[in-house]
Amino acid sequence: MSGRVKGFRFAGVHGGVKAGDALDLGLIVADEPAVAAGVFTRNRVRAAPVTLSERRLKSGLCQAVIVNSGNANACTGKQGQQAALALTRTAARSLRVPSSLVVPASTGVIGVQLPREKIEMAIPDLVQDLSEAGASRFARSILTTDRGPKVAQTEVKVGRTTCRVLGIAKGAGMIHPNMATTLAFVTSDAPVRRATLSKLLRQATELSFNRATVDGDTSTNDSIYVLASGAATRGAIKENSAAGRRFLGALTEVLESLAKKVVADGEGAEHLVRIEVCGARTDADAVQIARTIAGSQLVKTALHGCDPNWGRIVAAAGRSGVRFNLDHASVQIGRVSIFRQGTPIMTPKTELKAAATMKRKEYQISVVVGSGRGLGHYWTCDLGHEYVRINADYRT
Amino acid sequence: MSGRVKGFRFAGVHGGVKAGDALDLGLIVADEPAVAAGVFTRNRVRAAPVTLSERRLKSGLCQAVIVNSGNANACTGKQGQQAALALTRTAARSLRVPSSLVVPASTGVIGVQLPREKIEMAIPDLVQDLSEAGASRFARSILTTDRGPKVAQTEVKVGRTTCRVLGIAKGAGMIHPNMATTLAFVTSDAPVRRATLSKLLRQATELSFNRATVDGDTSTNDSIYVLASGAATRGAIKENSAAGRRFLGALTEVLESLAKKVVADGEGAEHLVRIEVCGARTDADAVQIARTIAGSQLVKTALHGCDPNWGRIVAAAGRSGVRFNLDHASVQIGRVSIFRQGTPIMTPKTELKAAATMKRKEYQISVVVGSGRGLGHYWTCDLGHEYVRINADYRT
Repeated sequence: MSGRVKGFRFAGVHGGVKAGDALDLGLIVADEPAVAAGVFTRNRVRAAPVTLSERRLKSGLCQAVIVNSGNANACTGKQGQQAALALTRTAARSLRVPSSLVVPASTGVIGVQLPREKIEMAIPDLVQDLSEAGASRFARSILTTDRGPKVAQTEVKVGRTTCRVLGIAKGAGMIHPNMATTLAFVTSDAPVRRATLSKLLRQATELSFNRATVDGDTSTNDSIYVLASGAATRGAIKENSAAGRRFLGALTEVLESLAKKVVADGEGAEHLVRIEVCGARTDADAVQIARTIAGSQLVKTALHGCDPNWGRIVAAAGRSGVRFNLDHASVQIGRVSIFRQGTPIMTPKTELKAAATMKRKEYQISVVVGSGRGLGHYWTCDLGHEYVRINADYRT
Repeated sequence: MSGRVKGFRFAGVHGGVKAGDALDLGLIVADEPAVAAGVFTRNRVRAAPVTLSERRLKSGLCQAVIVNSGNANACTGKQGQQAALALTRTAARSLRVPSSLVVPASTGVIGVQLPREKIEMAIPDLVQDLSEAGASRFARSILTTDRGPKVAQTEVKVGRTTCRVLGIAKGAGMIHPNMATTLAFVTSDAPVRRATLSKLLRQATELSFNRATVDGDTSTNDSIYVLASGAATRGAIKENSAAGRRFLGALTEVLESLAKKVVADGEGAEHLVRIEVCGARTDADAVQIARTIAGSQLVKTALHGCDPNWGRIVAAAGRSGVRFNLDHASVQIGRVSIFRQGTPIMTPKTELKAAATMKRKEYQISVVVGSGRGLGHYWTCDLGHEYVRINADYRT
């Protein structure tokens, strides 16, 4: 696949937010107003671009997204709100579209005012840079401490037409050293109604980014934007149709792939681990247990040490707030059983095997908590020295 | 003060749970059945001694507490329950008291059966070791990875008599490498009724151990036991009396002092930090915000780096689930204001001052979130390399 989506152009330039000549200004533009939806951080402290984007996306339409990295425009008061507004106006003028159809996103340091004039001066260059093949430049322009760009794409059949779904994200953990944090942009040429897109995005987010943690610190800027141009084919995907389910599948696939890339790039992380919980009374119970295990510092340092420390896993499950019977609990690392029906069964041999599994870059820990039908998972990474180094030594 | 409390004797010996000849078996015995109360871990996965102690303390009376370190007797199934029961029976026989008045406590590795016979063989030695001056041996016998024993004591006037409150705890964090975890034992010669002691213990715990975190991982064994012999004077302290309030104050003082020692001894911790939140609508809101800031990995690594990173503090407050207006929020480190009424006011000079404050062993971060009357605090420590080293490298 090509990183192209019908009806969209992308750009990425250096706009003077970051030092040197690193790309720090990105733009996605739809040829015509696209059906659009967004999900935004649940943090009460929200960056200026988050507030403005959420308000504008209520219309269900959007034609351009302008993104800067290197500065979160968060905790910047009225001046920050005015800056976010001004950038969308300047971009709208250059693009000759209504400013109500332009939304901003920012990521970087909290509490520093945006260099608004520098960015405004770079906007003509940015518009000049737009091209159908520009997704990779855009993907680079939104990065902060990421090890590299994060792109995921898939295809989905709508009628006889193959539509594309292209996702681009940044983020090296739910937190960053004074950075903020995860942004994801999805474009598709599939035809989707506004209300449908909004619902499907919520469902897909729940199954992807809301099942991923690096350290539990929700940022002030987390946002996902989806724009669907409908340029591939006519008609409209309905929510409860075969095409709707396929589109939800494609959107979830792309967002989950991006979420996994974010966790795998978690600061200092060496392992990407899927915590799967089954046998709970409800799916919500299973996800709650998986989330608690995935977020436990104790478990995450054991993952770092490749230590099949089932006691920490069981203890984390125990404090999840979900009721379950320890006598029916089992733990498996990869394919190695180490705790079964409430009883430790780890031998020196299985301990070695489990530890070997834990040396892999990606593996699964399965936890059974009973005989219910509730099933859920969470993606997490290990907590190592590098995480502490990055986060303790960032400014001082 | 002397570490003595009228009506109690203490002991600590080597019973063969730990390697070498380290003390690992402790005993507190009251001359007569003492009024007693306990609070226990909220973890669903609870060690055998926790379950047995909670059941027996429902009577409100207790004459002996037998404690082992080096093994948590958690996740050990029926065999673990039988071992806990057997130890209290053997101790009861040696002490010539009913076994219903003896409660057990354990701390150490999860998922390994107690060396029950070794311990039972050591019980006569343990009883032999009992003395009024034995508190310091007891305090050493319950340690695991602690840097040293944790003792706190105070006095309280009841009528014309000065009563003593002596607390002894262990714990180097809410979590340990496969260890489990915080135990605290308080003895007093004050006269208190059963129902009153139980209520006052709950209130004092809420204001002390429930306001302290190292890493948020509630263990399977956390327990606090209070025994009041009433040997100092006659009468009984009533809950809503001046003496009751003084006793609550004394109990809270001792438990908070122990909780601070536990946090200060947090694995790898170099700083003990009090997070104070005021201006919330309710005390519960303030505590919730303080708890979220205190538990944030992002904040705790900044504490380690002595980095006055107010953005992380404000972002953590924002995800606490409590509503507040950022425009009324302020942050102060020690006496240095760095964020006021929603606006960054840190200058290079105040940044240096704030960083200097953060180099201290103990300091306070004050967060104002509005003009409400809600007030709350939490104790936390920094998250550094040593924490990762201890927890990632423990077994492998």
